[in-house]
Amino acid sequence: MIHDGAGKQGVSAALQVWAVHGVPEVTPGMSVAELVAQYAGALHDGDVVVVTSKIVSKAEGRVVRADDREAAITSQTVREVARRDRVDGPPLRIVENPLGLVMAAAGVDSSNTSEGTVLLLPEDPDYSARQIREFLWEKRTVNVAVIVSDTVGRPWRSGQTDIAIGVAGMQPWRDYRGQVDQAGRALHVTMSVIVDELAAASDVVRGKNNGRPLAVVRGVSEDVLPPGDHGPGARSLVRLGEDDLFARGSKEAFDEGFAAGLRARERRAPQ
Amino acid sequence: MIHDGAGKQGVSAALQVWAVHGVPEVTPGMSVAELVAQYAGALHDGDVVVVTSKIVSKAEGRVVRADDREAAITSQTVREVARRDRVDGPPLRIVENPLGLVMAAAGVDSSNTSEGTVLLLPEDPDYSARQIREFLWEKRTVNVAVIVSDTVGRPWRSGQTDIAIGVAGMQPWRDYRGQVDQAGRALHVTMSVIVDELAAASDVVRGKNNGRPLAVVRGVSEDVLPPGDHGPGARSLVRLGEDDLFARGSKEAFDEGFAAGLRARERRAPQ
Repeated sequence: MIHDGAGKQGVSAALQVWAVHGVPEVTPGMSVAELVAQYAGALHDGDVVVVTSKIVSKAEGRVVRADDREAAITSQTVREVARRDRVDGPPLRIVENPLGLVMAAAGVDSSNTSEGTVLLLPEDPDYSARQIREFLWEKRTVNVAVIVSDTVGRPWRSGQTDIAIGVAGMQPWRDYRGQVDQAGRALHVTMSVIVDELAAASDVVRGKNNGRPLAVVRGVSEDVLPPGDHGPGARSLVRLGEDDLFARGSKEAFDEGFAAGLRARERRAPQ
Repeated sequence: MIHDGAGKQGVSAALQVWAVHGVPEVTPGMSVAELVAQYAGALHDGDVVVVTSKIVSKAEGRVVRADDREAAITSQTVREVARRDRVDGPPLRIVENPLGLVMAAAGVDSSNTSEGTVLLLPEDPDYSARQIREFLWEKRTVNVAVIVSDTVGRPWRSGQTDIAIGVAGMQPWRDYRGQVDQAGRALHVTMSVIVDELAAASDVVRGKNNGRPLAVVRGVSEDVLPPGDHGPGARSLVRLGEDDLFARGSKEAFDEGFAAGLRARERRAPQ
């Protein structure tokens, strides 16, 4: 399985990504950091440990009764972005949650949870990532980065990919702002979001539904691995407000405009 | 650099991802397939070769004059989704392009292109991927998958990641539709888009702006690598139309609603 080009002129060192098997079912009160220390094998400085938000949520007891799923989504809704009613079930709700993430069902998870329950996302996944990182430093004297990953859909594109919702110990992005290309023009790409790309890579080896909540990435280049700080975390990736061209679903925005148009005409009507 | 857990109980085989250095500047008429054969080193059956859309476009001569950039974007616009005027430059235009991809500037690329030019995306990146795959089979007797990757922004999230805009020789996704979790509930996640996740992983090792347009991924599991067919391609990932809750930017949809509201009130006004 080991590629034969490493070290030769012409090929970069390989990034390696593998999943950890056999991690036991996580229940409230367990320590994800201890699970990583126990099951992830020998870790090296500069490794990136990727844990699913699901086990972090379970360990942190972010569990609510399944018959309160809609209430749970509402409780995790800062702002509804779009909604689509469905005849065969509860409405699809795309909302901004307290983490600033825009997600279907606010990220409330109802697969592979304990019978009769659904899971909320971790309350502060950047903090969860920092805790795991600090534990591994203190107990194993290894300086890793930690990513908490979650699975999200995307507008305009089928299916889901994993992104980083918690990060500690690395720059979330490789920053090209201010850089120019060989012709002296500003680079079109501004920030490659390495942590989302690593979360995505970890999903390839982890899969869903087969009890692999941990993955390890080895060989991430040092430019995004500052040795000391936890870094700004995944929270720094949220882009809402003025820069957000999709703050509302098309139908919702149209309906609001329509109502405003009716009101404007009323105000303008002759007395 | 090789992790020491491979093969042990408890760890999956490692996915490996590396970039290829030293590929020469690509000019119109060159063959990307030949470049892969020449520079990518020894490939194995089941490897996934990731090439940037940029070199595919350059090889295919998808070059237009830089002073026609706005016209080029317009020519690649099937439908404008959102627009933001800017005081310091041309407007930001998020559009659907002929590939069904919703992208800023229609995917027209103006970094690391020949002086005075901008690049359109490949006309049919799935076809480009199939051509590279077939060449490698015919000339090197190796059965690889090929991904053409491009770099895109995301609503609600800073920065960019790579996605697959062309695919040959693999399933674009791992399909969980119809599967149930251990408690018998339908899985929330329906399709993990492996090809986007591999394109993302390849960006981590490739970087921008340093002449690494090729990457290789080894160790992708066989469930997504059917040995024969090219598969449905990246085009199958487009999700527009009725399922698209963000067919228009919020401002555009609001403005359209407002105009419709004004008109509706006029029609209803007493004679």
